[in-house]
Amino acid sequence: MEKRALLYEGKAKKLYETDVENTLWVEYKDDATAFNGEKKEVLAGKGRLNNEISSLLFQKLHEEGINNHFVDRLSETEQAVRKTTIIPLEVVVRNIVAGSLHRRTGIGEGTETAQPVVEFYYKDDELGDPLINDDHIRLLQAASPSQVKDMKQIAEHVNETLKKHFSDHGLLLVDFKIEFGMTEDGKLLLSDEISPDTCRLWDKETRQKFDKDLFRYGTGSLQEGYTEILQRLGGAAHG
Amino acid sequence: MEKRALLYEGKAKKLYETDVENTLWVEYKDDATAFNGEKKEVLAGKGRLNNEISSLLFQKLHEEGINNHFVDRLSETEQAVRKTTIIPLEVVVRNIVAGSLHRRTGIGEGTETAQPVVEFYYKDDELGDPLINDDHIRLLQAASPSQVKDMKQIAEHVNETLKKHFSDHGLLLVDFKIEFGMTEDGKLLLSDEISPDTCRLWDKETRQKFDKDLFRYGTGSLQEGYTEILQRLGGAAHG
Ligand SMILES: Nc1ncnc2c1ncn2[C@@H]1O[C@H](COP(=O)(O)OP(=O)(O)O)[C@@H](O)[C@H]1O
Ligand SMILES: Nc1ncnc2c1ncn2[C@@H]1O[C@H](COP(=O)(O)OP(=O)(O)O)[C@@H](O)[C@H]1O
Ligand SMILES: [Mg+2]
Ligand SMILES: [Mg+2]
Repeated sequence: MEKRALLYEGKAKKLYETDVENTLWVEYKDDATAFNGEKKEVLAGKGRLNNEISSLLFQKLHEEGINNHFVDRLSETEQAVRKTTIIPLEVVVRNIVAGSLHRRTGIGEGTETAQPVVEFYYKDDELGDPLINDDHIRLLQAASPSQVKDMKQIAEHVNETLKKHFSDHGLLLVDFKIEFGMTEDGKLLLSDEISPDTCRLWDKETRQKFDKDLFRYGTGSLQEGYTEILQRLGGAAHG
Repeated sequence: MEKRALLYEGKAKKLYETDVENTLWVEYKDDATAFNGEKKEVLAGKGRLNNEISSLLFQKLHEEGINNHFVDRLSETEQAVRKTTIIPLEVVVRNIVAGSLHRRTGIGEGTETAQPVVEFYYKDDELGDPLINDDHIRLLQAASPSQVKDMKQIAEHVNETLKKHFSDHGLLLVDFKIEFGMTEDGKLLLSDEISPDTCRLWDKETRQKFDKDLFRYGTGSLQEGYTEILQRLGGAAHG
């Protein structure tokens, strides 16, 4: 497969066209951003860690029958994915109260939710990715009611699968964000990335944080946290 | 009926116990507040205007078969209501984009929504009355799923009724906020107030604003706007 023109550069990844139909070449960057781009740093090795972890997790989901855009790992920092038209919604699932759910509800950080909490955010940097409800989604025509229903169901399935998978490796899946797109033949498909940039992951026993909160709140080395996650998931240590 | 001890003083009203079972004495105050209490003023006559308008609207809803807490108008600034245990949710219905819906979605102010947009806010001044979704309501145990369903349905019925009623008097019902409570015998009941403090009301032709936005944004006299609304609804002019 050949890498062609740059299609889009986001905060964490670059997307390139390829010579294969409906297939994109994704390069994970070393850029770390937080608070809607207010905090920014280049952290050597982050791109590799996220590409490796994301590849492992998408493969795991494939094995469990959850379709997603992942096609192949191409290099330490690159993967091939199926091209989709991204639905401008961020779907968040939460098992333990943290971050904005704590600020929104006043419920203490670390409290386990009786059932997973699903949230939709409108993917719009200028608006600050606001929380929206089903009526807002309809008003914005961001997705159809049946797409919303399907995204919720898939998100809950991803949650069950990854919660168990992380737990088997000593990690608590606190919450995560996923994105969906539509394939050229009109099917909803889990896309984007699943990595410590988009998940909160704590040690099961000590509740030590290994995810992007290390960078957000400057409480430790992001690379050390992500390396810990990759190693626990059985990924190759850096060579 | 006799007024007894002060039960609660809010930003806009005082609630007193009475000698009649399950009945409260409500006094509408002249205090105006906005932006979660940041802006504050005493506006002579506001209490009367809101009490008169709220009494007329609750009576109208009774006539249309929508149960609510209103019992009787007691004086220019007072009314008797059925006591309820307030559910800590603000239910907002929107027909035209304004205020926070504009800021949240980026959709232009004044845009008509194809269908009414219903929102739930968690009634908590310290948290700034945040928008929440059905999963948050369940997590907070603020209301049961069946209460949520009933509140949505009643809110839509209130919207249909009041939209028509205001329209008959040359006014556009842009949006409004209502609150519900539970009666002593476990029934959901529309409570609190419906007034230009809690509705956006624009002139049907010119779109001139007659509601609390006059005070929020300092764009005109609140008392003049509320007087216009009261007069159009056929309420008694002062004096
Ligand atoms: N399979 C895909 N097809 C097309 N676009 C995708 C796919 N997967 C992810 N994207 C998009 O790639 C863009 C780049 O990713 P990222 O750097 O994370 O962007 P952002 O700054 O929006 O978070 C995002 O807009 C994301 O939605
Ligand atoms: N029928 C009722 N029974 C008991 N409480 C009520 C009833 N109707 C309204 N309330 C409550 O009365 C309180 C006072 O009203 P208000 O001054 O508007 O308060 P706030 O500052 O919370 O807006 C509010 O908490 C409201 O929910
Ligand atoms: Mg991203
Ligand atoms: Mg009030």
